Amino acid sequence: MRSPAHNHGSTAAFVLYNGMMADETLEITIRELMHRTGLTLAVAESCTGGLVSHRITNVPGSSEYFLGGIVAYGNEVKTDFLGVRTETLAVHGAVSEQTVLEMALGVRQVLSADIGAAVSGIAGPGGAMPGKPIGLVWIGLSAPGVEHAWQYIWQGDRLAVKEQSAGAVLRHIVEYLRQVRGFDSAHNQIMEA
Amino acid sequence: MRSPAHNHGSTAAFVLYNGMMADETLEITIRELMHRTGLTLAVAESCTGGLVSHRITNVPGSSEYFLGGIVAYGNEVKTDFLGVRTETLAVHGAVSEQTVLEMALGVRQVLSADIGAAVSGIAGPGGAMPGKPIGLVWIGLSAPGVEHAWQYIWQGDRLAVKEQSAGAVLRHIVEYLRQVRGFDSAHNQIMEA
Repeated sequence: MRSPAHNHGSTAAFVLYNGMMADETLEITIRELMHRTGLTLAVAESCTGGLVSHRITNVPGSSEYFLGGIVAYGNEVKTDFLGVRTETLAVHGAVSEQTVLEMALGVRQVLSADIGAAVSGIAGPGGAMPGKPIGLVWIGLSAPGVEHAWQYIWQGDRLAVKEQSAGAVLRHIVEYLRQVRGFDSAHNQIMEA
Repeated sequence: MRSPAHNHGSTAAFVLYNGMMADETLEITIRELMHRTGLTLAVAESCTGGLVSHRITNVPGSSEYFLGGIVAYGNEVKTDFLGVRTETLAVHGAVSEQTVLEMALGVRQVLSADIGAAVSGIAGPGGAMPGKPIGLVWIGLSAPGVEHAWQYIWQGDRLAVKEQSAGAVLRHIVEYLRQVRGFDSAHNQIMEA
């Protein structure tokens, strides 16, 4: 059984991280933290269409920890490559907590990575549904013993939704790695004491 | 057996297509041509790291013809997901005509697409080898009865190499679709005559 996912709205995150300066350093921070933790990363993208992988690979040396990504634009790619259940897509839809959790777990497993991140949303201008407006985006993260999902509702056009979503994915990876690093540091201090 | 690939240097293409204005319309042209031809597209990216898929999916409606992409950063992703032969990588290297042709064919087959495009190169600043300088990029295209590869040597930093490579991939897709469209038009004229 899946553990309850941690969800929060987008407003706070958007206000906090809207500055491009802060945002552009995320992929560099990821490199530093990946090197320290020695972990590997894989990404499954739907609405961002490759932008998350593009940003991660803008950093020299990213091939040391970034194994690869799957741009799962069609539903068949989600089911056939990432192991998302047809039932999940039918019941909850492609833009849902359940789907991004299965995408994150799936990409982590098929690429044999330590961390899997996933994103699925409605970038617009089409695709809105009752209860699922344009700008709705779900982000999922999967790691050993860890499973989280976050919901955002972004403002702006298609590219703005893609860019804000990609930034949020990178931030959640950073937050997870900082936790891992924190645990490592505490562990090391105890070991060294 | 593979048919001989069509190769040419980068200089002419770079001069012809360096303008950003012309380049930015490529993904829109692809949408028009994909709609006319009714074909589907899949992409396998190494050095561009997702940028090709990102650009294709910047266009609303791209989900109708773009099935998805695989960012094959690690060699294991190239072999396990795209069916690139270990022997090919060992003998010719990841940045080679043979590898991009196998990547293009592989992504077309595994995603059941009509057209497969692939790109592999050395974006730098590391990774240069004897005979394979930074900026060397191979692009492959696979479609029924069609197999082509092109070699480029781009100038500029890591991001510049990624951007020029992504633009070149899109241009080769446009060129292929225009040929298909041309054949269609000629065929239709004959049929209508």
